Amino acid sequence: MIQAKRSIDLNCDFGEGYGAYTFGQDAALLEHVTSVNIACGFHAGDPHTMREAVERAAGAGVAIGAHPGLPDRLGFGRREMAVSPQEVYDFTLYQIGALQAFVQSITGGTLRHVKPHGALYHMAGRNPALAEAFVRAVKSFDASLLIFGQWGSELLAAADKQGMLRVSEVFADRTYQQDGKLTPRDLPGALLTTPEAALAQTLAILTHGTVKTTTGLETTVQGDTVCLHGDGPHAAEFAAKLRQGLESAGVELRPPHAY
Amino acid sequence: MIQAKRSIDLNCDFGEGYGAYTFGQDAALLEHVTSVNIACGFHAGDPHTMREAVERAAGAGVAIGAHPGLPDRLGFGRREMAVSPQEVYDFTLYQIGALQAFVQSITGGTLRHVKPHGALYHMAGRNPALAEAFVRAVKSFDASLLIFGQWGSELLAAADKQGMLRVSEVFADRTYQQDGKLTPRDLPGALLTTPEAALAQTLAILTHGTVKTTTGLETTVQGDTVCLHGDGPHAAEFAAKLRQGLESAGVELRPPHAY
Amino acid sequence: MIQAKRSIDLNCDFGEGYGAYTFGQDAALLEHVTSVNIACGFHAGDPHTMREAVERAAGAGVAIGAHPGLPDRLGFGRREMAVSPQEVYDFTLYQIGALQAFVQSITGGTLRHVKPHGALYHMAGRNPALAEAFVRAVKSFDASLLIFGQWGSELLAAADKQGMLRVSEVFADRTYQQDGKLTPRDLPGALLTTPEAALAQTLAILTHGTVKTTTGLETTVQGDTVCLHGDGPHAAEFAAKLRQGLESAGVELRPPHAY
Amino acid sequence: MIQAKRSIDLNCDFGEGYGAYTFGQDAALLEHVTSVNIACGFHAGDPHTMREAVERAAGAGVAIGAHPGLPDRLGFGRREMAVSPQEVYDFTLYQIGALQAFVQSITGGTLRHVKPHGALYHMAGRNPALAEAFVRAVKSFDASLLIFGQWGSELLAAADKQGMLRVSEVFADRTYQQDGKLTPRDLPGALLTTPEAALAQTLAILTHGTVKTTTGLETTVQGDTVCLHGDGPHAAEFAAKLRQGLESAGVELRPPHAY
Repeated sequence: MIQAKRSIDLNCDFGEGYGAYTFGQDAALLEHVTSVNIACGFHAGDPHTMREAVERAAGAGVAIGAHPGLPDRLGFGRREMAVSPQEVYDFTLYQIGALQAFVQSITGGTLRHVKPHGALYHMAGRNPALAEAFVRAVKSFDASLLIFGQWGSELLAAADKQGMLRVSEVFADRTYQQDGKLTPRDLPGALLTTPEAALAQTLAILTHGTVKTTTGLETTVQGDTVCLHGDGPHAAEFAAKLRQGLESAGVELRPPHAY
Repeated sequence: MIQAKRSIDLNCDFGEGYGAYTFGQDAALLEHVTSVNIACGFHAGDPHTMREAVERAAGAGVAIGAHPGLPDRLGFGRREMAVSPQEVYDFTLYQIGALQAFVQSITGGTLRHVKPHGALYHMAGRNPALAEAFVRAVKSFDASLLIFGQWGSELLAAADKQGMLRVSEVFADRTYQQDGKLTPRDLPGALLTTPEAALAQTLAILTHGTVKTTTGLETTVQGDTVCLHGDGPHAAEFAAKLRQGLESAGVELRPPHAY
Repeated sequence: MIQAKRSIDLNCDFGEGYGAYTFGQDAALLEHVTSVNIACGFHAGDPHTMREAVERAAGAGVAIGAHPGLPDRLGFGRREMAVSPQEVYDFTLYQIGALQAFVQSITGGTLRHVKPHGALYHMAGRNPALAEAFVRAVKSFDASLLIFGQWGSELLAAADKQGMLRVSEVFADRTYQQDGKLTPRDLPGALLTTPEAALAQTLAILTHGTVKTTTGLETTVQGDTVCLHGDGPHAAEFAAKLRQGLESAGVELRPPHAY
Repeated sequence: MIQAKRSIDLNCDFGEGYGAYTFGQDAALLEHVTSVNIACGFHAGDPHTMREAVERAAGAGVAIGAHPGLPDRLGFGRREMAVSPQEVYDFTLYQIGALQAFVQSITGGTLRHVKPHGALYHMAGRNPALAEAFVRAVKSFDASLLIFGQWGSELLAAADKQGMLRVSEVFADRTYQQDGKLTPRDLPGALLTTPEAALAQTLAILTHGTVKTTTGLETTVQGDTVCLHGDGPHAAEFAAKLRQGLESAGVELRPPHAY
């Protein structure tokens, strides 16, 4: 029998502005999440947004992670690029180090986790060589950092192989296919549009380790953290309802491995 | 009576390529210097050049420092920009952290020093508020880092005020004015063009703490490190001759504070 | 006796987003202005925002101008940089050409005017050598382009010297000092905060060629175009009221030199 | 019977430095080619290199083309990126326009051709939708521009479909496979390493419209322009020998369609 999990982490991307530009409603999300992934200056973010994001996250008492991306600011790190494992290693190390400087300077502490952004998340989730390079970069920097990766991804497999702690990420507002993968966004039924449906899916993952897929059958999905999106018009409201629903169901919200 | 110094550091900028581009003859200089200042991705350098530079510097056994610059790759960090102290603080922290990640990952150790590049070197050398912000960023990251700054500069004064160890940089191939400042490059007599003249000036600084200025009189100039340039056609030859001359005169070449 | 002008241009900056980022309320301003200054990819904008901005501006029937800035996206082109006249020339020519390609492709026509952005506007407004280089770049590209510059600026003087048509820009929501210059933003009384005051000042410039300065006396200010800002919370409302007020006073709103 | 061509164009990439960085030996190649493809500021080049490149090319009397690339300066435009046709259209138009401004300003004339760079060359050579977008951008800007594309590529097919003049590019120093495509660089025998072999292959293309492939059999390869590389150690010597060999064989060297 599966023991129901009684705690989960809620994470969101954070500090994704740039210069004079702001992005999303991350300020509004901050009170609902327990971990944030801070952009490190490649796909988004700059030294100033990073400092401010660390200050705000530290003030809110959430766990701070790095959110490294591809060097494609124009494309917000969402376009896949033909990068080599060595390039992924170097990009990751650079960005983690830059953010750690702010964390160290402002809080005296260290990063808690690393989650790749956008195209890098997908590429490292699918390609074992890129996943290996990503995890190796993180490990070479700080072997106690948690690796956030998608449930079922090569990234989590690479973390396992290298003996790194890993955190399985699930999505409250996306549906799953029978193979345990997310329904692509361009297919009908890809999104769960109500907070109620998102809550039900999250509770099913927590309680049974399963979700009902687009076929109507169930499949195994285990999650340690739920990704919340900050860029929709109702992002904060959605997050608030999900959090309240989880708390009402007796689920403790806290960063992963915060024992 | 001034006690003659019997040791000095020779430093050069290092890893200033970018992507497909190389810059200067830093490989040739590496065997002649005892410290290198590695570009951190703003005025020059990228995650790949930084990794390679750290690997090469570690292999050569020289002291590794960060060389943060202004965010102006097109201008190679040589154009002054109207940046605020807060911006200088954030730029510096970001770049130090990024380079430290490579040093930590590759050598298991830490940076030894920080030297601002180009326009940032000059601005922080002249403007107390920018100097204060630069030193504060370095100190907040690692209070044991050495601050490299020009003899007589506000940067060294700021390091003193904040209780940071500082390293006075002098120039072997530039002449000094009566006020202890360098003769501007666009004036006649700004450069010492022979290795012999550069050696004589360096020995005078070491032995007497003075140089003969463009007026013919002497002025006080004290130095802990000598800056060597890697971008002239005879850079490596110049460096080799200076090093040999110093060694022949019984001067030990080593990184500052390497006791 | 001064003949009152019976027409004026209203301009605003336009297309200042970048990648995933939007900026200001330029869509809301578009229906109130008669000219737009489109960002060209240096301080803001990218090939996609430029295409869309030209499409929207052409659809609205307003005059299209280029808004070249310094190569400082992080600082939104607002930080002064120590650039040479040659650099200003090259930056300007590059950006005008890039925008002209979209204008030509989409409308079959050409740019109508060029207005430098932010720090470049101020530097070229104050420094005759930079102003000369800016105007020369525009002239070498298309001698029929109008130069937008601040009333009393070196930029307008340079346009005169080179025989280029120039358009004097005034501000509806800023106060003037006795020397005809704008009151610096950090001084009290720098801003006219009500649409009524802005309208009154604009009508005074149109009718008498004067404004009442912060001293209470009048000074000469002549204007061919009024700059509207798109980045405040009430930007569109302010613009609408100014436009209605001008129209009620019998002033025709149209691009400069649109005879 | 195939009529032997008695003229051909030799082209090389040009002006691929950036800021303080130089690249390749394009100065040495300039006297051997009849067309140059000038980098436009995305994969390489900046407003200053572009101006200088146009000045030098105009001084040498060669035909000037644009060499637009992907927005990936760090990767020198050599990494494939998941860009859409609309993005390719916008990138191309922007870069052509920027370079045209310098051509117009310096020579009073116009660009003669456009050749995509690196990954964009390969992607537009293989993907009909990207090829279509690239050609459409060029055509919308100036329908008299020549499209340079690889023999057998989708890019040339797209030019044909849109009624644009196209120039088939062949390689003197690369071997061909039986399907008319280049032998991939990582396979043995991919390169022709002597000027003699390169000359023989070029003459075979000119005279018979065929090359001997890696299988030993012949295949059809027709070329209007030969690509010379500027970044090898013997680039200029190779180019000189090829040019002399062609001239000795009675082949006229001139830009395409320079009738």
